[in-house]
Parts: sequence; C-alpha cells; structure tokens
Amino acid sequence: MEILNRINQPADLLRLSHAELGVLAAEIRATILKTVAANQGHLSSNLGVVELTLALHRVFESPHDKILWDVGHQCYVHKLLTGRRDQFHTLRKLGGLSGFPKPGESPHDWFHTGHAGTSLSSAMGMAAARDLQGGTHKIVAVVGDGSLPNGMAMEAINHIGHLKPDLIVVLNDNELAISRTTGAMAAYLGRIMAGTFYTRLREGVQNLLKKFRRVGPPVMHLAKHLEEEIKGMGGPGVLFEELGLRYLGPFDGHDLGELTEVFRKVKSLKGPTLVHVVTKKGKGFAPAEGDPIAYYAPAPTFDVVTGAIPVAARKVPSYSDAFTDTLIKLAEEDPRIVAVTAAMLEGTKLKKFQARFPERIFDVGMAEEHAVTFAAGAAAQGLRPFVAMYSTFLQRAYDQVMHDVCLQHLPVAITLDRGGLVGEDGPTHHGVFDFAYLRHLPGLVVMAPSDENEMARMMATAARLNQPSSIRFPRGEVQGVALDQRLSPLPVGKGRIVREGRDLALLSIGTQLGCALEVADRLEREHGLRVAVADARFVKPLDEELIAELAARCGRIVTLEEHARLGGFGSAVLECLAGRGLRPPVLVIGLPDVFIEHGSLRQLRERYGLAAGPVFERVREFCGLPAPR
Amino acid sequence: MEILNRINQPADLLRLSHAELGVLAAEIRATILKTVAANQGHLSSNLGVVELTLALHRVFESPHDKILWDVGHQCYVHKLLTGRRDQFHTLRKLGGLSGFPKPGESPHDWFHTGHAGTSLSSAMGMAAARDLQGGTHKIVAVVGDGSLPNGMAMEAINHIGHLKPDLIVVLNDNELAISRTTGAMAAYLGRIMAGTFYTRLREGVQNLLKKFRRVGPPVMHLAKHLEEEIKGMGGPGVLFEELGLRYLGPFDGHDLGELTEVFRKVKSLKGPTLVHVVTKKGKGFAPAEGDPIAYYAPAPTFDVVTGAIPVAARKVPSYSDAFTDTLIKLAEEDPRIVAVTAAMLEGTKLKKFQARFPERIFDVGMAEEHAVTFAAGAAAQGLRPFVAMYSTFLQRAYDQVMHDVCLQHLPVAITLDRGGLVGEDGPTHHGVFDFAYLRHLPGLVVMAPSDENEMARMMATAARLNQPSSIRFPRGEVQGVALDQRLSPLPVGKGRIVREGRDLALLSIGTQLGCALEVADRLEREHGLRVAVADARFVKPLDEELIAELAARCGRIVTLEEHARLGGFGSAVLECLAGRGLRPPVLVIGLPDVFIEHGSLRQLRERYGLAAGPVFERVREFCGLPAPR
Repeated sequence: MEILNRINQPADLLRLSHAELGVLAAEIRATILKTVAANQGHLSSNLGVVELTLALHRVFESPHDKILWDVGHQCYVHKLLTGRRDQFHTLRKLGGLSGFPKPGESPHDWFHTGHAGTSLSSAMGMAAARDLQGGTHKIVAVVGDGSLPNGMAMEAINHIGHLKPDLIVVLNDNELAISRTTGAMAAYLGRIMAGTFYTRLREGVQNLLKKFRRVGPPVMHLAKHLEEEIKGMGGPGVLFEELGLRYLGPFDGHDLGELTEVFRKVKSLKGPTLVHVVTKKGKGFAPAEGDPIAYYAPAPTFDVVTGAIPVAARKVPSYSDAFTDTLIKLAEEDPRIVAVTAAMLEGTKLKKFQARFPERIFDVGMAEEHAVTFAAGAAAQGLRPFVAMYSTFLQRAYDQVMHDVCLQHLPVAITLDRGGLVGEDGPTHHGVFDFAYLRHLPGLVVMAPSDENEMARMMATAARLNQPSSIRFPRGEVQGVALDQRLSPLPVGKGRIVREGRDLALLSIGTQLGCALEVADRLEREHGLRVAVADARFVKPLDEELIAELAARCGRIVTLEEHARLGGFGSAVLECLAGRGLRPPVLVIGLPDVFIEHGSLRQLRERYGLAAGPVFERVREFCGLPAPR
Repeated sequence: MEILNRINQPADLLRLSHAELGVLAAEIRATILKTVAANQGHLSSNLGVVELTLALHRVFESPHDKILWDVGHQCYVHKLLTGRRDQFHTLRKLGGLSGFPKPGESPHDWFHTGHAGTSLSSAMGMAAARDLQGGTHKIVAVVGDGSLPNGMAMEAINHIGHLKPDLIVVLNDNELAISRTTGAMAAYLGRIMAGTFYTRLREGVQNLLKKFRRVGPPVMHLAKHLEEEIKGMGGPGVLFEELGLRYLGPFDGHDLGELTEVFRKVKSLKGPTLVHVVTKKGKGFAPAEGDPIAYYAPAPTFDVVTGAIPVAARKVPSYSDAFTDTLIKLAEEDPRIVAVTAAMLEGTKLKKFQARFPERIFDVGMAEEHAVTFAAGAAAQGLRPFVAMYSTFLQRAYDQVMHDVCLQHLPVAITLDRGGLVGEDGPTHHGVFDFAYLRHLPGLVVMAPSDENEMARMMATAARLNQPSSIRFPRGEVQGVALDQRLSPLPVGKGRIVREGRDLALLSIGTQLGCALEVADRLEREHGLRVAVADARFVKPLDEELIAELAARCGRIVTLEEHARLGGFGSAVLECLAGRGLRPPVLVIGLPDVFIEHGSLRQLRERYGLAAGPVFERVREFCGLPAPR
C-alpha cells in the first residue's frame, strides 16, 4: 500500500501522477477486499465508487466543500482518503470505524446515514444555510439510482429545482440497487444509456473539454459556453431539466481523468447540476462484477482472489428464510396472499417467493411509503398482502400504517424483519423502536415470536385476521425448533406460560424468551427462586388476564424485550397493571435511551444489558438477592 | 334544488340534458356554499371540482369503477352525487357526514383520507388486486397539483410507470394548493400551461374528438389513432411520458362537455394515463375565485352572496398566531433562526414571518419528509430551524426526525401545531399520537405548553438548546394569559407545581392543565380533598424528582393529557415510577384506543372523557369517593 500510505488527507491526492493514481485505485480495492473479507461489510458498492470518490476528492476541498453520501454504505473509499486509513481494519467492529458516514468520526462526515434518499434534502438544507451565511463552498450529494426514486429524494428535487441553489447531485448509476431496481425511473435511466443522445452529448462535451484544456482561464466564458451548448443539444436528461436541474452525462464512472475534468467544470457552474455517472458494482474484482448481489455484503473469510464464499458447515436458516418458506406455504393455500417489499427481495429472502409466485409479489423499489399504502389498496380489494420490510425502514411508513392501513382497518400483515439489534450496521439499522411507534395505533395486532415456529403461527394468524397486524422477528439464525406443519393460528391476545413458578414472573416478548428461561433456571439453581416465565406473544392486544394472574401469583414481574425501554412492551405492561389497579413491583428490561452503536450482536447485547448475564444481575438486585461473593 | 333532488345515484346523471347539467352544477355550488357557510368546511376546492366530478360520475360507473380522491377535502360534490344529498346538511357535525371520503359512509368511498399523496399508491394497490383477480373495472385517482410532488405520490408514479396497469390519474391543476404551490413540479405545470404545445395539442385532440363524434364505434381503431397522434405530436407532458404514463391535456376543467368526452376516450385506453385538468378554485363564487386562500375554509356564517366573512367581535388570537409572533421575536434576536414549513404558511400563520423575514423562511410544499431533513441539513451548518407542522402531518416524517435530526443530535425545533384533537376534520387530522411516536427518540426534548406564554418560553428554550426538541400546542384560541416579554427559557426537564395539595396529585401535560385545575377545585369543594396540580411541561426529559415528590407527598397520581392513552405521557410517568421502585396508585387519563371521529372539540372532549366533567367522575371513582346522590 505504498501510495495509499501517503494519503493522509484528500489534498495529498493532488500530488500524485496519473500512474500513481492508478496504483492507488488498485491499492484501495485491495484494502477494501481484505477488510471486508475479514470484517464483512458492503463490497460491491464500494469497489464501484473508487474512481468516483478519487475524482470528487481531487476536485472538491473536503471538508470545506461538503460531500454527502446517500445511504452511506459506499463510503469506504471516502474513509480511506480522509485520514482513517490506519483505523480501517476496525471497520464495523465495536468501537471501530462505522460502516457508514458518522460525524463524530471525522470532520469529513456530515451525517450518520443508513436510510435511503436523505442526502438531497440534507444537502439542500446545507445549501440554504450557506447562502444565508454568505458561504462559497460547494455541496455535493452522491445518490444511487436505487435511492433517487425514493419519495423524499423526489421531494428534495422538487425543492432544489425551485430554489436553484448551487448544488451538485452526482447520480451514481450502477443499474441496480440491493435488488435490481424496478421502476419507471430505472427504465428512464436505461433509455438514457441506450439512447442516441448519449453519443451525441458525450462527443459534444468531450470536444468542449478539449477546447477548455487548451484555452485555460478565463473560465467563466467557457463554462457559459459549455452550458449553452449542452442546453442547445437538448439531451437525455430532459426529465431532470424539466424539474430545473442542469443535466450532464452520462459519464464513465471508472475513467478518473474524465470524471476529474467533469467535476472541475461543474465546480465552476452556478445553480443545481445533476451529473450522471455510470459505475459498475464490484468493479475490479471479477467475482463481484459478475454477481454484484452475491457480493453485496458477502460472508467474511471469502477468498479475496477467487471470490469463493465459504459455505457454513451446517447451514442454519435465518428468520428471513423461515419467513419466506412459511409465506409460500400460506400462499399455496390462500390465493389472496401477495407479498410486497421495498427493494429487499434478497434481504427478506422473498426471491424464493418470487420464483414460486412471480405474479403475486410486488417489489416497489426503495419506496416504503408507497409499499404500505399500495398494500392497503390491494387489501381494500380483497387481497391479503404481507409487507416485508426491515423494522428500521418501516419507520418511513409510520404515517401510512396509521392513515392508510389502520384507519381503514385493512387486513395488511406488516412483517418486520431485523427487529431488535442488528449488529454491525449500527444505529441507523437497529430495529428497536417498532413496538413504540406501532402499539398505539388503534386496531393493529402487534406480535413478536419467540422462535420460528411461533413466527409461522403468527403469520398464519395474520393471514386469517380481518384487521391489520404486525409481526416482528429478529435478524439472524432461527432457534432450530420443530415446525408445526399445520400452521395453526394463535388465539389473538393470548400469551402462554412456558415455565411455572410462584416467586417471580419473567414476562418476555419475542426472542428474549431464551434469555428469560436461562435467567429463571439460574435463579432457581443459585437462589432457590421458583420463577414463572411467560411468552407474551402479543404486544397488542395485551394478554391482560395473564398479566393479572402473574401479578397475583408471583407478586413481582420483570419484562424483557429487545427494544427501547421507553414506550415499548414493558410500558404496555405498566399501563395494563395501572389500568387494573394492580401494583406489583415491576422491572422493565429493555435498551437504554441512547442510540446504540455498531458492534456484534453478542457484544451489544452484553453491553446494553440484554444478555443473560446482565439480565440475571438486574433481576437479582430487583429481588433483593445477595450478590455472589 | 330541483335537479339535484333527482340525483340519488351517479347513474341518474345520464338522464340529464346539457341544460339540466348546467342547472345541476349551479345547484351543487349553491348547496355547498350554504352548507359550508353554516358548518364551515373546504369551500374553494369543492367549488373548483363541480364539473370534474360530474364528468367523472357520468363516465365511470361508481362504485363498480373506483374513484379515489387524494387528500379528500374536495369530495363534497362526490358526496352530493352518491346518495348523501339528504345528509349533506350534517357535514362535519358529530355523527354527520365526514368532510372527507369515509368507507363506512358509502360504498362509493374507498379510503378515509386526509393526508396528501396517498391516492396513487392505493389506486395502484387496487389495480394490482383487480389484475390478479381478473376484474375489468376502471380505477381513477384524482390528485391535486399540490399533492403530486409529495414523495409517496412520486414513489407511486415510479411504480405505475413500471408496471403500467390500467389506471387513470386525473391531475387537478388548480395552480395552488393550500399555500401557493412551490416547487419545480409547479413551475413545470406552469410551463405546460404557457407553452406552445398547449395550443397544438389541444387543437389536435379537439379535432380528433370531433371526428370521433361523427364516426362512432368501432372505437378501438380511433382510440389507437388518438394515442398515436398524441405521441406523434410530442407533447407538454414529456416528464410524465418519460416516467411511463400517457399524458393527455391540459383540458378546461369547467367545460363539462369536453371533460366528458375526454374521460369517455380515456376509459377505453389501456395502460396508465394522466389526464391534466385545469380548474379554478372557488369557481362560480366570485369572492372565492378572487381569493381562494381566504375561502379555503372560511369561518361559518360568511355571506353566501357577498362573501363577507364575519369578523369576530373580539378577535382572540390562535396558538398559531402566538407561535408566529414569538418566532418573529426570537428571529429578531437570533439570526440563526429560520422557519421551515410544508405547505402550511397559512395554517401555521407563518405568512407573517414570511413578510418579516422573506429570506429566512422555506415553504417546501407538501413534503414533510424533505422539510425535516432539510432542516437537519440547515442545522448541521449552524442555523436554528423551527419546523412548523401539524402534529398529524409530522407522522410522515417520523423516520426523518429519528434518522436525520435525533441521530445527529441537531438543534432542530419541531413545532407541532394542532396537537391533540382538532375537531371537525376528524381522525386523519387529530394529532393524538405525537408523544408516543416521539418520546422514545434519544436526545429529543419533548415539550407541551399549558398556555401561550409557556409556549413562547418553550420556543425560547428550543432556540437555545444544542439538541433537538419538539413543542406541541393545540388548535384554537390561546388562553389569554399575560406574556413574559423577556421570553425566559425554561429549565429543561423541570415541571412546576401550580396548586398545592397533599391528598391527590393531578399531573397534567399541555393544555389539560385548565381541566386539572377545575377538577382540583371541585374535588376540594365537594369532597374536601386537598389536590396538588402540577404542569409537567416536559414529556422528556421527565421531571422525575417532581413525580417522586408528588408520589411521596400525595400518595396517588392522576395524569392528564390530550393524547392517546397508550404510549403517551401517562405511560412515561408509569415508567418513571416503576424505574424508581415507586408504586402509588396511578390513573392515566387520555384518549381511548380507537380512532376518534369528527365533531366539535367540545363534543369530542366530552365524549372521550377529557372534559372536566368526565375527568372529575373518573378521578372521583379512582379515589373511592361517593357519587353525588
């Protein structure tokens, strides 16, 4: 890493020759490959933006000029070039570098991102601040073709095209997002690529750039000329032009020389400009170029030469696998069942459903709001949609769940994958607020299974309900329990007692049940406490009878959930008890009121008190039991 | 109302002559004027869609064909034509017709709407259901030019243009939404109206329609011809065409004959079609035509001939007025303060701020997601944005508050107007979930003032905080208290005791304080109870010391809030008590777990137990006091 080791800040790039830049790009790719192979992470997207990031940092003076990364999973090159090379081996490790931009980490990072479509809005806000304050710096938002059709990105474009601030939008068109991008915008970009405008415009721009090289300053005249010429040509970006943005492109996102020239020119232009750059995901690593989805975030210890991804000795299915397998079963029995997802065919494993029922799955792209209301429309006409979404991304559609699903009391089943902590992706991806933002919605049945069989039965329940429901399940591997082949639905609003006891009740929701049982066993073993353990199953309607019974029988209740302590399941239990005039001591165990950083699931559960060890300690103290000597 | 009285269902329209239809339109306008003058409601928008609605119901066979109204405030004509004429005088009254489409009310209504931009998504879902089920009915979504640039509408267009179902989008372009629409889309539509394409296309279409009239069936050939002709002409709707929708228009939205012809042709076309219709808000009522914003929802008893809007004898300012007046004061002192709103310049009274600081206000249109993240961007660069939004509409930006404001710990002040019940606009507009969806977000200071002076001080607090905050205040008139001219900030997380007492504590948040004091006085008067009353001021951070003190001193606590009982302020108090191991009896008074219908504020507060009368009864029972004989 001879060249990379000399790059301590973006300005160091200016000292490199053309040849050295080529070596640097290769070194960056090698570093990313090595690190992702060890730590896991986003591979294809970062390999795809090496030249783009180099060109941006050669032309714009970060952090004076502000570069924003939409979603942010493509920020590794940016991190390597902005003084974080030496920590890069800590990527995604607890206490190490985040896999996303993170303001506390570097002055070159402006927002801690992870959700799609935010960069244009935040860039626009930064531009408004600059213009009020009389600043002159440039603001660049890099957005992928998958994020651009997201609602809030389009709202931002509407505002940008109206106020027309100096703002540069780099459309990183890699022709696929996590799933292959669907939608009219994708088709439009595809037509640009295929169209004759491409060649004409490209030639025109290249000719001008050649002239520019010869003449040198005064640049203003030439920039103006460039602008007029492009306008005169009409162009492929008519959609963006109609919305008030100057369109330039498409450009080869791996031609560092061309990109650098383009950005130099763009830097001198006034008003909003969209630069359309075409990159290849996985660029420079043949296996990833060939199958960028497989190498989106490959399992660690994949082979950095051959790309071989290790196959786990015993392949345990994930909750997502179990979810899709169950949905297929249910759909085989009930023709009303359809699946809806927002660019998460791979993440939710719905690809299998798509293969089985190609007509009954709708991937709407990164458009969570539309996904939920689309499902509401389908349910209003007699279908039974299952909306599969990560818990954190459903936050985007909170209003749609309220206004379009619950208010109409429609039988939409909202299935939240990645409920609870997600590990290395960190605070933008943890799904730890869903009980709190869902359980006050009238008519919504809110479920969380303790294992995959419970999940399957909850899905069967949802499929038969004539009202809205949500099912929240965790990231990762299933418990490995036997599956009830009949898929019997559950009685709504009924929990179950899993372990009998009279001295203390542990009332768990979701996969904290395992922890509850472990803690109960240890309390009995070490302190002779007879501990009841119950699985609530439903956050709403709450099993009030069960709670009252546990309060009466055991006197003390501990609630357990992998969710923020504020407003969650424990809070619902407190409401129930107060409503019934019951006043047992209650200990609510959940996540503290902070954003939880990234780290392994095991580390985070330990650190934030959800693992059996810290739960045991808290319960012991709560019960006034002596500490071990 | 000779003609209107004969219309019991849309099919009755087909029996009317051209002249009778003209009379009917006038009768409908007179009925709407009279009813809105008595009951209040949306005037300009409904007067603007009389011919459009007539044309739709003449051509499409509702409810077999489905007509969806975006936002839905323009549904009065639709209601009059679909069997609800005789109940129309109950519009917006408790138990009467809703001011919005409402499924329980009529088979012609498909969604209970009120938020913007949902119709395209629900229509798309209904189309997907139809196509799976082999149905042949038509689906029409009517969307205003103000709602179209909303994020979820654009997400839906992306999906519609991709799947290309048979779906008709009627763009009702009235050149202004509630506030004059800002944004690139509005400018684009403006260019269509001004452009030369307009004349050409219009003439071309009209010529074709003339031919069509003569020839009659077979229509297929002509429809195809029409389609090709339009495509061949190119056209003003290139933006929509690029996104995969056939564009037709613009058409005169008050020419019933033309509209009817257009819809007849469109009905026979396959694939998604956008019909651009230009209407005039307030059409047919000169005062409203001249000032559609003033007549957006004029005060009742305005003069239906002259349009004179009565001036209240004593004009009490609203919370919105007080909010804007305070914001102007704060902005005069602090140049970092800017205002951001989403098409609510009038509703939030920010027009006054705009007049004073035209450079420091940003109306982003109906784009709540963008508004919040835009504010985050501005705050990241040193500004102090106040985002003014109705509580119910902030639901759209829940994720942005979490991901873009709170996670970066940015000093954005989110001010929620219309917090609590809003009255006649009903369930889509009540702001009764905000504590529940905000208070679990780490780092957010959540405030609710008990009067306008408290609100002003909370705003001063927010302006000085180096972290995110929210302030929720109600719809309607201020309390009329004296204002602290110094605008002293409050100590964060500190409530205040307003009335001393030792037998019972009433702990109130927001404007329920008045109710608490009234109930306390009555409890003392009638039962000799010494009742402490405290104003919590902060939902977060909660004044734990105050709560512990009240628990210790009074033994019993009643919490009061104009918010859903689940997950709200009372729930936070329960968490606090449980966390401290305190177990006083607690009565949580809030709204029950149902969607609250429309009605006057007074009626709703009485019916749902928030008025002093029912609160007194509940507290009396809670304290085990005897009922009056």
